[in-house]
Amino acid sequence: MIECTNDPFDDDKLHEECGVFGIYGTEDASALTALGLHALQHRGQEAAGIVSYDGRRFHPHRARGLVGDIFGRAEVIRRLPGTMAVGHTRYATTGETAVRNVQPLYADFDFGGLALGHNGNLTNARQLRRELTAEGSLFQSTTDTEVFQHLIARSRQARLLDRIIDALRQVDGAYSLVALSRRKLIGARDPLGVRPLVLGRLGEAWVLASETCALDIIAAEYVRDVAPGEIVVIDDDGLTSHQPFAPVRQRFCIFEYIYFARPDSLVEGRNVYGVRKAIGAELARESHVAADVVVPIPDSGVPAAIGYAAETGVPFELGLIRNHYVGRTFIEPTDEIRHLGVKLKHNANPVMLKDKRVVLVDDSIVRGTTSKKIVEMVRHAGAKEVHMRISSPPTSSPCFYGIDTPQKSELLAARNTVEEMRVAIGVDTLAFISQDGLYRSMGEAGRNNALPQFCDACFTSQYPTTLTDHEDGRGEVQLSLLVEPR
Amino acid sequence: MIECTNDPFDDDKLHEECGVFGIYGTEDASALTALGLHALQHRGQEAAGIVSYDGRRFHPHRARGLVGDIFGRAEVIRRLPGTMAVGHTRYATTGETAVRNVQPLYADFDFGGLALGHNGNLTNARQLRRELTAEGSLFQSTTDTEVFQHLIARSRQARLLDRIIDALRQVDGAYSLVALSRRKLIGARDPLGVRPLVLGRLGEAWVLASETCALDIIAAEYVRDVAPGEIVVIDDDGLTSHQPFAPVRQRFCIFEYIYFARPDSLVEGRNVYGVRKAIGAELARESHVAADVVVPIPDSGVPAAIGYAAETGVPFELGLIRNHYVGRTFIEPTDEIRHLGVKLKHNANPVMLKDKRVVLVDDSIVRGTTSKKIVEMVRHAGAKEVHMRISSPPTSSPCFYGIDTPQKSELLAARNTVEEMRVAIGVDTLAFISQDGLYRSMGEAGRNNALPQFCDACFTSQYPTTLTDHEDGRGEVQLSLLVEPR
Amino acid sequence: MIECTNDPFDDDKLHEECGVFGIYGTEDASALTALGLHALQHRGQEAAGIVSYDGRRFHPHRARGLVGDIFGRAEVIRRLPGTMAVGHTRYATTGETAVRNVQPLYADFDFGGLALGHNGNLTNARQLRRELTAEGSLFQSTTDTEVFQHLIARSRQARLLDRIIDALRQVDGAYSLVALSRRKLIGARDPLGVRPLVLGRLGEAWVLASETCALDIIAAEYVRDVAPGEIVVIDDDGLTSHQPFAPVRQRFCIFEYIYFARPDSLVEGRNVYGVRKAIGAELARESHVAADVVVPIPDSGVPAAIGYAAETGVPFELGLIRNHYVGRTFIEPTDEIRHLGVKLKHNANPVMLKDKRVVLVDDSIVRGTTSKKIVEMVRHAGAKEVHMRISSPPTSSPCFYGIDTPQKSELLAARNTVEEMRVAIGVDTLAFISQDGLYRSMGEAGRNNALPQFCDACFTSQYPTTLTDHEDGRGEVQLSLLVEPR
Amino acid sequence: MIECTNDPFDDDKLHEECGVFGIYGTEDASALTALGLHALQHRGQEAAGIVSYDGRRFHPHRARGLVGDIFGRAEVIRRLPGTMAVGHTRYATTGETAVRNVQPLYADFDFGGLALGHNGNLTNARQLRRELTAEGSLFQSTTDTEVFQHLIARSRQARLLDRIIDALRQVDGAYSLVALSRRKLIGARDPLGVRPLVLGRLGEAWVLASETCALDIIAAEYVRDVAPGEIVVIDDDGLTSHQPFAPVRQRFCIFEYIYFARPDSLVEGRNVYGVRKAIGAELARESHVAADVVVPIPDSGVPAAIGYAAETGVPFELGLIRNHYVGRTFIEPTDEIRHLGVKLKHNANPVMLKDKRVVLVDDSIVRGTTSKKIVEMVRHAGAKEVHMRISSPPTSSPCFYGIDTPQKSELLAARNTVEEMRVAIGVDTLAFISQDGLYRSMGEAGRNNALPQFCDACFTSQYPTTLTDHEDGRGEVQLSLLVEPR
Repeated sequence: MIECTNDPFDDDKLHEECGVFGIYGTEDASALTALGLHALQHRGQEAAGIVSYDGRRFHPHRARGLVGDIFGRAEVIRRLPGTMAVGHTRYATTGETAVRNVQPLYADFDFGGLALGHNGNLTNARQLRRELTAEGSLFQSTTDTEVFQHLIARSRQARLLDRIIDALRQVDGAYSLVALSRRKLIGARDPLGVRPLVLGRLGEAWVLASETCALDIIAAEYVRDVAPGEIVVIDDDGLTSHQPFAPVRQRFCIFEYIYFARPDSLVEGRNVYGVRKAIGAELARESHVAADVVVPIPDSGVPAAIGYAAETGVPFELGLIRNHYVGRTFIEPTDEIRHLGVKLKHNANPVMLKDKRVVLVDDSIVRGTTSKKIVEMVRHAGAKEVHMRISSPPTSSPCFYGIDTPQKSELLAARNTVEEMRVAIGVDTLAFISQDGLYRSMGEAGRNNALPQFCDACFTSQYPTTLTDHEDGRGEVQLSLLVEPR
Repeated sequence: MIECTNDPFDDDKLHEECGVFGIYGTEDASALTALGLHALQHRGQEAAGIVSYDGRRFHPHRARGLVGDIFGRAEVIRRLPGTMAVGHTRYATTGETAVRNVQPLYADFDFGGLALGHNGNLTNARQLRRELTAEGSLFQSTTDTEVFQHLIARSRQARLLDRIIDALRQVDGAYSLVALSRRKLIGARDPLGVRPLVLGRLGEAWVLASETCALDIIAAEYVRDVAPGEIVVIDDDGLTSHQPFAPVRQRFCIFEYIYFARPDSLVEGRNVYGVRKAIGAELARESHVAADVVVPIPDSGVPAAIGYAAETGVPFELGLIRNHYVGRTFIEPTDEIRHLGVKLKHNANPVMLKDKRVVLVDDSIVRGTTSKKIVEMVRHAGAKEVHMRISSPPTSSPCFYGIDTPQKSELLAARNTVEEMRVAIGVDTLAFISQDGLYRSMGEAGRNNALPQFCDACFTSQYPTTLTDHEDGRGEVQLSLLVEPR
Repeated sequence: MIECTNDPFDDDKLHEECGVFGIYGTEDASALTALGLHALQHRGQEAAGIVSYDGRRFHPHRARGLVGDIFGRAEVIRRLPGTMAVGHTRYATTGETAVRNVQPLYADFDFGGLALGHNGNLTNARQLRRELTAEGSLFQSTTDTEVFQHLIARSRQARLLDRIIDALRQVDGAYSLVALSRRKLIGARDPLGVRPLVLGRLGEAWVLASETCALDIIAAEYVRDVAPGEIVVIDDDGLTSHQPFAPVRQRFCIFEYIYFARPDSLVEGRNVYGVRKAIGAELARESHVAADVVVPIPDSGVPAAIGYAAETGVPFELGLIRNHYVGRTFIEPTDEIRHLGVKLKHNANPVMLKDKRVVLVDDSIVRGTTSKKIVEMVRHAGAKEVHMRISSPPTSSPCFYGIDTPQKSELLAARNTVEEMRVAIGVDTLAFISQDGLYRSMGEAGRNNALPQFCDACFTSQYPTTLTDHEDGRGEVQLSLLVEPR
Repeated sequence: MIECTNDPFDDDKLHEECGVFGIYGTEDASALTALGLHALQHRGQEAAGIVSYDGRRFHPHRARGLVGDIFGRAEVIRRLPGTMAVGHTRYATTGETAVRNVQPLYADFDFGGLALGHNGNLTNARQLRRELTAEGSLFQSTTDTEVFQHLIARSRQARLLDRIIDALRQVDGAYSLVALSRRKLIGARDPLGVRPLVLGRLGEAWVLASETCALDIIAAEYVRDVAPGEIVVIDDDGLTSHQPFAPVRQRFCIFEYIYFARPDSLVEGRNVYGVRKAIGAELARESHVAADVVVPIPDSGVPAAIGYAAETGVPFELGLIRNHYVGRTFIEPTDEIRHLGVKLKHNANPVMLKDKRVVLVDDSIVRGTTSKKIVEMVRHAGAKEVHMRISSPPTSSPCFYGIDTPQKSELLAARNTVEEMRVAIGVDTLAFISQDGLYRSMGEAGRNNALPQFCDACFTSQYPTTLTDHEDGRGEVQLSLLVEPR
C-alpha cells in the first residue's frame, strides 16, 4: 500500500547531499568559487559556505540559503580575500541543518589551519566518533566531516598529506573531499570512486569541482576526473598525484546519471543529457504502448521523455507546466495551502491532455506520493489513458553514500510489486527500465552481476562497502545532547 | 549597431508589470489569494501584497520579494483574516519599487476603506496627477494607481460604483482592476481590453484573476473573461455586470500570447501553449533552413521550438541548460561575476551542439545583448551553423500599457534592419515571424490593418489610445521630490 | 481604591510625546540633527525620523527605535545629504506606532515638497479630518500632523507662509512645529505656547529644537525661545519672524519643569534642575517629618530629593539603585519575569534603608502601581518608617496637549483623597507640593487663579482651549479602517 | 604626556569581563537565569547566553546584545526548558567577540554534555592550548574557557568532579566558574578568590551568581560567598562542598569595590555603596580644598561624591547630566558625531557650575581622555576652579585576571607623575586616594605590604600568580588563523 506523508512540498525525490569546489592560484578565488557553487546548486540547496586563505588568515562565510543569496553581494566576496578557496553546498534532510554543520568545516591544528568540504557519507563515522570522544576529542558538529578533522589532528605523522592518508585509511564509505591548508589545495576520492570529482584549469589556476558544469560557468578547461582512491595535492610547485590505496574496481553511483548530475555535465566521460535520452529510448524499446503524447514530469523527466518520443515518434508535449518560483517558499503552509500542495509546483495544461492517451515519463518513484497526485491532475484534465514510464529500476533500498533517502519502509518499491505500485499510483500501465537496459544505456553490454560496473545498491541492495554503523544494532543515535539553536 | 548594457543579469526580455487577484465569500480568502498570486508570479517578481477585510477592518501585508517568501508562513496568513481579499504581484523596473508603491493600495474614504490593485498603465496619469495636486490632493506613491484613488475620493457621486465609473471615464490607457470595499469585490477592464482579467467560481465564492492558471491552482472553475469595458460588482447579492462605456473593438495585447502569459493559461479563449506551438510551426513554414537540431532558448522559447521541430521533423534538443536557482541572486555582482554574467542562467550542452547546424528559437529580441552572448556560447560549444528564429515580429516600439520596455533607442529593432541585427547578434541567418503569420497563428486570416484585432503597437507603433503624457513634451518627469528610503 | 495594571514595566509616568529639531545652512545637517534628536531622546523613545533636502530632492529615514540605533551608522547619515534637515523623535502609547505615523511626515504639494514634524496635540483634529475627507482628501496616517498637511494643500494662498498661517488658524490645541521646504526652514508655536521650542545658532547655521540640551550637544549657541504664536522663517536671506495671531497670555506646560524636560535644559529662561531643587526645598518646608535619610526614586526624583535634603539637613542617600539597561527589553515577559516586574528597573540598597525612617521623593503619582511596589521593596529592606513626598500636586485630569496620560479613571488622584492614596500606596505619610508652593518654586508669588501663568490642567482641569474632539460625544474613534502592518 | 584615542565613545573605564549565574531545581530555571543575568548586565554588555537542561537534552541560546534584548521574549525562554540552567554575560574588547566565543560553552563528552561559564582570566591558557593542540585537541573558540573543556575531556578520572579538579589543578589565574551537567550544577572559585561568586536559595532551588544583586532580583536568599578554592556540587541530594587546594590567603579584587560591582551588592560581607561612600569621605580627609560644589562624574562617581560632600559639608550637586540612552548606539559615527563624542553621554548643567569652585569626583583615571574632555566642558560652563578627586590610587598596571585594561603604555598613570597628570587633564588640583586610605575605607588598618589583603596589582604591580603567557616573550599571539565571520 502507498504511504502518505503530510508534506505537500515533498517533491518525492532522492536528493544529492552535497557539491564541492576548490580553486588555487587566482586573484578572484572566492568569486569564482561562488560561481562554481552556483552551478552546483542542484546538489544542495539548504546551505553553502566558502573558506578562503589570503596568505595570512582564513576567511569563512557559511550560511543557510541559496548560493546566490549568500554570496551574490560584492561586499560578501570582498570579505573573502585570497588566491585560494574551497566551497561547499549542502542539502540537509532535517532541522539538524544547524549552522554549525554547514561546511567547509575549519579547525586550527598544530600545523596551522585546514578547511574541509565533503561530498559523500561514511559508513563507520559513528564508531569512529565514539572512539575519538573516549580519547578526549570534543566534537562540535554532527557531521561525518568532523571525523576527518579529528583523525587528522590525532595522526602522529608530520606531513599534512601523510596525516590525511592516515585519516582516510580509517574511514569506510563514500567521499569526495576538498581541503585547503595554508599552502595546499587537496582533493581526494574514496577508493571506489562513488561520488564524482573533476579537475580543471583556468589559466594558471587549478580547479576541483563535483561536476564539469562548475568548470563551464567560470570558463575553466576540463582536465580529467580525479581517479578513485587518488589524492591530488596542488601548491605553488604544481599538482602531484598520490594513490595510497590498493586499487579496486570503481563503483560510481549510477543515480548520478539518472537524476543527480546536471544534464550538461560530463561525468566520467559521458554526457548526462545524452545518457538520459538513451535511457528514454531504451525504455521505449522495452515497454512502449500506443499513445498520443509523451509528457515529461518537469524538469527531471524531460531528457528521457525526449529520447522516448524520438524513439517512438509519438509527439513530445509540455502537458505539465512547472512553476519555478517555488524555491524555499510556503515553508509553513496553512491548511488551505497544504491541501493544494502539489499545485504549487506543477499545473496540468489541459489542451495537451484532454482525450489523449498520455505517456508520463519520470526519472524515479520514491514514496509515490507526488506521482499519485500528478496522475490525478492529469486525469482531471481529461486524459483518456495514463501510462507511467520510469527511467530507473524500482528504488527499493536506502543509500548510505551521501544521498538522502527515506527509510526503507517509506520506499514504495520496497514493499510493493510493480503491479501494486501501478494500482497505488493510479495509472493504466507502469513500467521501469530494466537493470540490463539501464546498463546498456550506459554503453555496457549489461550488468556484470559478479562485479557490477556501478554502485546501484538503491535498486539491488548490493552495497560495495561494510555498513558498520548501520549494522551495529543501535538504530538512530543522538550524536549530540545539544539542541540546535534556531 | 548593437547596444550593450552593463547588467549581465538583464535577461533582455520585456516584462509584464503586474498580476491581480480577488476573491469574495470564502473562509480562506487570504490563503487562496496567496496561492493565486503564486500562480501569477511570472507577471511580477519584485513585490506582492494582499489586503483582506474581516467585516470590521482591512488587513494589509505588502512587501518586496516573491509571493512564497512573503506569504508562505501560516502566521502571515493568520494576520489577514476575513472572507474577502484582493492581491497584487508587481514587477518594477528601477529602484523606485518603494514599499509605498507596492499594491494593493489602500485609502480611507468618507464612505469607508477601499483597496485597489491595478495591472496596466495609464497614458494620462501625469496630467491627472498635476490637476489633482493643484486642487489640494496629496499623493503618497508614484504609481498610476493612486490617480484612481484620488479621482474616486473627489467624485461627487454617492454610490461607490458611480464614483468608480466617474474615475474610469477620466483615464486613458490600459487597466485591469480589482477593488475591495467593505461590502464589495469589484473588477474592471478598460474599454479596449488590453490586459486580461478572468472570472471564476470556487463553490459559492467568486474569483477574479489575471489568468486562468490562478484559478487552476485553487481548483476554481473558469466562468468567463471579464469583457472589455465591463465592471463586475460582487457582493452578498451575487454578481452584477455594468458596461458604462460605448463599445469599441477590443485590442487585446498580442504579446500576452507570445511571452507574458503562462503556457497553461486559457487567454480570451485560446490556450497559450497551443498558440506558441502554432507560431513555431508557422515560423518554420516561413523561414526554415536545413539544420540538425532545433534548440530552444529556455524557458520561453520551448513551446515555439517544439512546434518548429514538429513541423520540420528536425530533432528538438536541450542544447542550452537553464539554472533555475538564479532568482534575485547575485544582485550586486563582483567584476568577476559580472564578466561571466549570462552563464548564471544558461549553459551550453556541448554534446548537442558540436558540429551541428543549430536552429535557436526564442520569443523575441529586445536589446539583443543576451542573444549575442548565447550565440557566442553556442558557437564556442562547436556549432557549425547557428540560425536564430524569433516567434514575434521585430520589437521596434515601446509599450505604454503596462509592459516594461526599454527606451526606443535601446530596442535593437528600432534602429537596425534584420540584416544588421543578424550581424550584431552573430548568427548565420535570422528570421522573425511575419505580422500576418503571427495573426494566422492566432486563427485570424491575417492582420486587419484598418482595425487590428490586437494591440501590437510594440511591432507596429499603432497605439490604440492617445498618449497624453508621452506627447506633452516634458520627457521623464520626477513624480516626487522624495527619495525612496531603502 | 488603587488600580492595578498588568504591565510590570509600566513605569507609571506621564510621557512627553515628541521632540523636534531643525537645522538650516550647514554641511552636516543630518549628523547634527541626529545628535540633536539623541539629546531629545527623553521626549520620545519609540521612533525617530529625519528628512534632509540636498537642493534637488528630499531624503527621508524614519524607523522605530532609539535615535542612536537608527542614525548611529555613518552609512545612514550619508543617505541623508544636504545642508538642511528636520528631525522628530516620538513616543507612542499603543501599537498604533505604525511606521506610517513616524515623523517628519512628507508630502509633495504643487509648490514642491514639505517635511513636517510636530510636538503637541490638536483638540479639533478629528473634526477637521472628517471635513477634509468629505471633500476628497485621502489620509495616510492617523496622526494629527497630517491634518496640517491637508490644510496646507487645500489653502488657496500662493505663498507657503500664508498657506501655513491659513492652516494654523483652523487648528486648536498645542503645537511646536518644524517644517522644511525646498528653500525654507520654518518653526511655529501655538498662541498659548504650551510646548517648548528654542532657537539657536551654530556658526552661520540656524537651529530649532524642543530644548536647549539639543543645542548644547552640537555646541550651538542659544539665541532665544520661539515666542508663543510666532512663526519663524529661515532661508538664505536669514530669519524673519511673523506673529499672525492676536496675542494671548502664555500658558506653558508646568509639567515640563516637573518631569518632562531634561534637568540641564534652560526652559523659558529657567534652569530645570534648579526649579526641581527649589520644588524639593519648598516641599520640605511644607511637609517635612523627622527622618534619617532622604532617598530619591531614581532618576526623576533626584533633583527634588537633593533640594529636600539640603533644606532639611537630612542625609541624601541612594537607597534605591536603578538598572539603566532595561530599555526596550523584556518586551514580552514570561510569567516569572512579569511577577518580578519592578525589579528590572529598581533594587533596594538595604544598608541605606534598614531600621531607618525614610523620606522617598518622587516627581508624581500617576496610577500608583509602581509607587506601591517600591514602597513594598523599601519596607522589605527593613525601613522603620516610609514617608512619600511628591514634587507635583495630585495628577487628577488627563492632558490633551501632547502628553500621554492614562484615562481619567486610571489616575489614582482622580478618585481618591490624599489619605486614601496614602493607604493605597502603603506609606506612613504622603504629601504633595501645594499648587501655590509649586508656583512659588517657579518664582511666582503664587497661582493667579483668574489667569494662570502656566497650563496646569492635569492638576486643575482648567484647560486653556476648547476640547472639540473630546466633547463631541463620540468617544474613541477609529481613525482608519486599516490595521497597521507589523 | 596624555595619550589620545580616536574612540569618542570610549568611556575610559576598566571593564569587568563577565558575570555568571546558575540555578538548580525550579520550573522557571531559564526565566530566572535571564533575570539574574539582567541584574549582572553591568559586568558585560556585549553578549549573553543561557544553556538549560530538560532531563533529556541541553538547550542553548547565545547571542550578542543586551540580556533583555536576547531573552526578553517569552518565546525564547520557552525554547530553554528544564529545571536547571547556567548563564553568562560577557564584555569583549574587540571584534573577536565572535558568536563562537559567547558563553556558556557547551561540549559533548563521553560522560554526556557539559555547559560552562567563566568569569576571570587564566595566566597560562596559551601554554595549555599549545600543549593540547599538539596532542590533537581541536579548539573552536579563542576563549580561555575552552581550555577547561579540553582538560576535562582529556582527564583520565572517572567522576566529573575529579575531572574538574584535574583540570583546575593545571590552570593558573582567576576564575569563578558555573557548570551544568546532566545531573549537577557546579560552582568553583580559584584558590585566591580573585573574582566573586555567591550562593543563594530560592525555595528548594539553589542559585550561584557573581553578585548578590542577581539574588535580589529573583527574591532569592543570600546564603554565603563560595569560598576561595571551593568547589560546590549541587544535585538532587543537595549541596556538597569540596576544597581540593591547599589553602592560601585570599586576594579578592579590590577594584570590584571601587567600580565593578553594583552599589547595592553585598560583596564578601561588605555593602559596595557603603564602601564607596567611605572612600569618598577618606578622600575628603586626605585632600580636601575649599570649594562651592561637589559634582560627581555620573554614574560611577556618585557614591564617593556623596561621601565626600557629607564629610566636608560642601553641597552635592548634579553639575553633569548623563544621557542613559547611549547604549550600543552611534557605533560607526560620522566625523561630525565623532568630534562631539563625549557629549553623547554627558552634558554640563551650567547653572550649577558657573563661577563656582568645583570638586569633580570620579572613580579612576585610565587613559585620561574622557576626564580631559569633561574638565573642558566644566570650564566652558564657567567654573572658576576645577579640582579632581579620584576614589582609587593611580591605575598604573594592566590586569591579567579578567578585567579589560589597555596596554600599559596607554595608562596615563604608568608614565606620568600625579603633577603631570594634573596638567594633562587640565585641573587646578588632582588627588587620588592613598593606598592605605583605600584599605582603611575597607575596614583594614592599612595595606599589609607583606601579604596584601586584596589583589591590587593594577595599582601596585604585585601580581598574586605567575604570568606564564605574559612572560613567554611571544607578545600578542594569534590564537586562531580563522577570521571571525560577521
